[in-house]
Amino acid sequence: MAIYANDPRRKSWINVPEHSDFPIQNIPFGVFLTRDDVITIGTRIGDTAIDLGAMHQLGYFRDIPLTEDIFLQDSLNDFISDGKKTWRLVRNRIAEVFDVNTPDLQENEAHKKIILFGLDEIEMQLPVQIGDYTDFYSSKEHATNVGSMFRDPENALLPNWLHLPVGYHGRSSSIIPSGTPVRRPNGQTLPQGADTPVFGPSKRVDFELEMAFVTTDANTLGEPIPIAEAEDYIFGLVLFNDWSARDIQKWEYVPLGPFLAKNFASSISPWIVTMDALEPFRTASPAQQPAPLPYLRQERPGSFDIHLEVDLIPDGSDATTICRSNFKYMYWTMAQQLAHHTVNGCKVNSGDMMGSGTISGPTPDSYGSMLELAWAGKKPLTLEGGQTRTFIEDGDTVVFRGFCEKNGLRIGFGEVSSRLLPALPL
Amino acid sequence: MAIYANDPRRKSWINVPEHSDFPIQNIPFGVFLTRDDVITIGTRIGDTAIDLGAMHQLGYFRDIPLTEDIFLQDSLNDFISDGKKTWRLVRNRIAEVFDVNTPDLQENEAHKKIILFGLDEIEMQLPVQIGDYTDFYSSKEHATNVGSMFRDPENALLPNWLHLPVGYHGRSSSIIPSGTPVRRPNGQTLPQGADTPVFGPSKRVDFELEMAFVTTDANTLGEPIPIAEAEDYIFGLVLFNDWSARDIQKWEYVPLGPFLAKNFASSISPWIVTMDALEPFRTASPAQQPAPLPYLRQERPGSFDIHLEVDLIPDGSDATTICRSNFKYMYWTMAQQLAHHTVNGCKVNSGDMMGSGTISGPTPDSYGSMLELAWAGKKPLTLEGGQTRTFIEDGDTVVFRGFCEKNGLRIGFGEVSSRLLPALPL
Repeated sequence: MAIYANDPRRKSWINVPEHSDFPIQNIPFGVFLTRDDVITIGTRIGDTAIDLGAMHQLGYFRDIPLTEDIFLQDSLNDFISDGKKTWRLVRNRIAEVFDVNTPDLQENEAHKKIILFGLDEIEMQLPVQIGDYTDFYSSKEHATNVGSMFRDPENALLPNWLHLPVGYHGRSSSIIPSGTPVRRPNGQTLPQGADTPVFGPSKRVDFELEMAFVTTDANTLGEPIPIAEAEDYIFGLVLFNDWSARDIQKWEYVPLGPFLAKNFASSISPWIVTMDALEPFRTASPAQQPAPLPYLRQERPGSFDIHLEVDLIPDGSDATTICRSNFKYMYWTMAQQLAHHTVNGCKVNSGDMMGSGTISGPTPDSYGSMLELAWAGKKPLTLEGGQTRTFIEDGDTVVFRGFCEKNGLRIGFGEVSSRLLPALPL
Repeated sequence: MAIYANDPRRKSWINVPEHSDFPIQNIPFGVFLTRDDVITIGTRIGDTAIDLGAMHQLGYFRDIPLTEDIFLQDSLNDFISDGKKTWRLVRNRIAEVFDVNTPDLQENEAHKKIILFGLDEIEMQLPVQIGDYTDFYSSKEHATNVGSMFRDPENALLPNWLHLPVGYHGRSSSIIPSGTPVRRPNGQTLPQGADTPVFGPSKRVDFELEMAFVTTDANTLGEPIPIAEAEDYIFGLVLFNDWSARDIQKWEYVPLGPFLAKNFASSISPWIVTMDALEPFRTASPAQQPAPLPYLRQERPGSFDIHLEVDLIPDGSDATTICRSNFKYMYWTMAQQLAHHTVNGCKVNSGDMMGSGTISGPTPDSYGSMLELAWAGKKPLTLEGGQTRTFIEDGDTVVFRGFCEKNGLRIGFGEVSSRLLPALPL
């Protein structure tokens, strides 16, 4: 089935501001609370939120095999379970309904009052109930930078790194939507030169510039997903800020990996942009040398050209863009990550989330964390207005933006924005 | 409120075989499928399963504040959310209804036909929908043994180990109930002396003798659980076999911890034995030196005297008991684990599961994994009948049992039993 929704010539009867991330060719999916305190699944065109639950009740999805309440839910999990064919049918239908040449809803004022919302009338929620969350570590530049700082610059990349997409399990319960503030964590750290740890607020709170993909039900326990099929089980992507406490991490992470340094909060952008919408921006990932084992060999280009930016906004000050990176810098692709994750038979469910790992590029201004940008505190960043930063300070807001742009078409993710609150008193 | 259900003098009108793990003083909770394909929450006395959904519909829980469908569910999550006071009220009521001196249900043949099942008439399910799963690493003997084999015998215990309960996140989606077979995983390993990895079936599949506790909703994101309150948020425990692939683990685990070596399967016993039922068996954990930081100091004894045994049963052969250990050997207590896990504000939900880590005792016959029992393959175990084992072979069944015993009272967990199937062809 063709992805009619991607037709770049299509215009919507809904106003789309210039440089919007959400033209009619995007059609992302999210969950929001309306002014009447009703929770529903929706999409967005320009600055208008669209209630898909109401659209379905009013018959706009007739002839598509959907259960009656599929959009009247507080998560996208069941819709995602319906699979790729259904996602595409629904997205194509939305494109058709909002096409400037389609009069049905366009000319029905009563329906429009029920279906359309201004962004100030809704409150975005987590789009999925996340079952399991995995975080990869798939940027070669990031792994090399961190390996140099935490371990040994001569052997920064560990022997397994070029052979498999290193990943680890994270905590689903602390994933929160954009706008929810994050509290500086308390924890154990080992001060420089000390023999015994101390307890108190982390002094090295950091962001990690990541993206994360959301899966559908993919396999039964014990069976792998072949790499050629892996992308069919990916619904879409969000921006992902994997908040980190570097001093807690350094003390706790041997031998079983990061734990409390990560699980106090991870923030995501609320609109899931589908793989279909990203298709025009498909591009190659970096050449892989040595060639991966056969179960990790992907025939087609497996990455996407997504510009990423990080703003840091001190309390009451202007924003400074401190990082410009790109999703295409990832050494391992999403298909490789998913094929590897399941090669042992690990079960993947609808609503699972898999983070890319910090996306650092080749130049110092493309590093995706304060740890790398300020090189473990050795090279403080100077912000607009003159303040300096080595890590994130109380009251700072961190904003990620991400978008694709090609031949005049822009498909974006909006933003994930979160403010750091001071630690709770001990 | 007193735990009337624990009265050791109480006898049930249901027959309880000698040495049963399930006298009327146990009253565990589980989920089962009945002969009519109905799923319900239940308990067990002797070899009789009891349908709590039916009991509630027939009025046996009147005056206890419970929603109508609280037991007509496919998981215990909502009941666990009701909190400790409700768990205790329900357990006390069950003890009363099945007391030999209570005629109501005892003399109502029609009700008995609806409520009671033989074990061969039901099929046990996973008792909870597990949101997040964490695995600790809290046996000093196990950490020392593994550190000696995988790293350096001189510095087997890493510097953080005596200061905090080391833990890491695991995969919820691959936790399965007793009886479900486990497939030997395929994966990447680095053969001894080789420079590049190979792909194929793991050659070092192992069990890990663990227990796991199940939590209730405990906090809001950003707020810690003080250690003095931590036990109030623990519903109960199960036996936990954290299946592991040692050769995959060795290659993949640096720097972010075990991943595919663990997430192909973890098996649990299906009945959750409550903290209340275990109370008579409370005992001290090993002395902690150095004293932990204040947030980890527990006033009362925080462990439980639970005997643990592991049987290995080759295909068509007799069982050999290859390990006898005890939960009380754990260096870090459950309350310490939960207080540590949340000290940074990490959110804990109803149905989350936290594994102890492998429970090895001080003597070689109390080591809780093949890795330790056969010392990385160097000291093969000889089984009844003469076969030898260094790791688990295809067709082998591994059975854990666990029980407390004191003053003639035995409270047990039944067993978790799983058989290893050959790897899928490549």
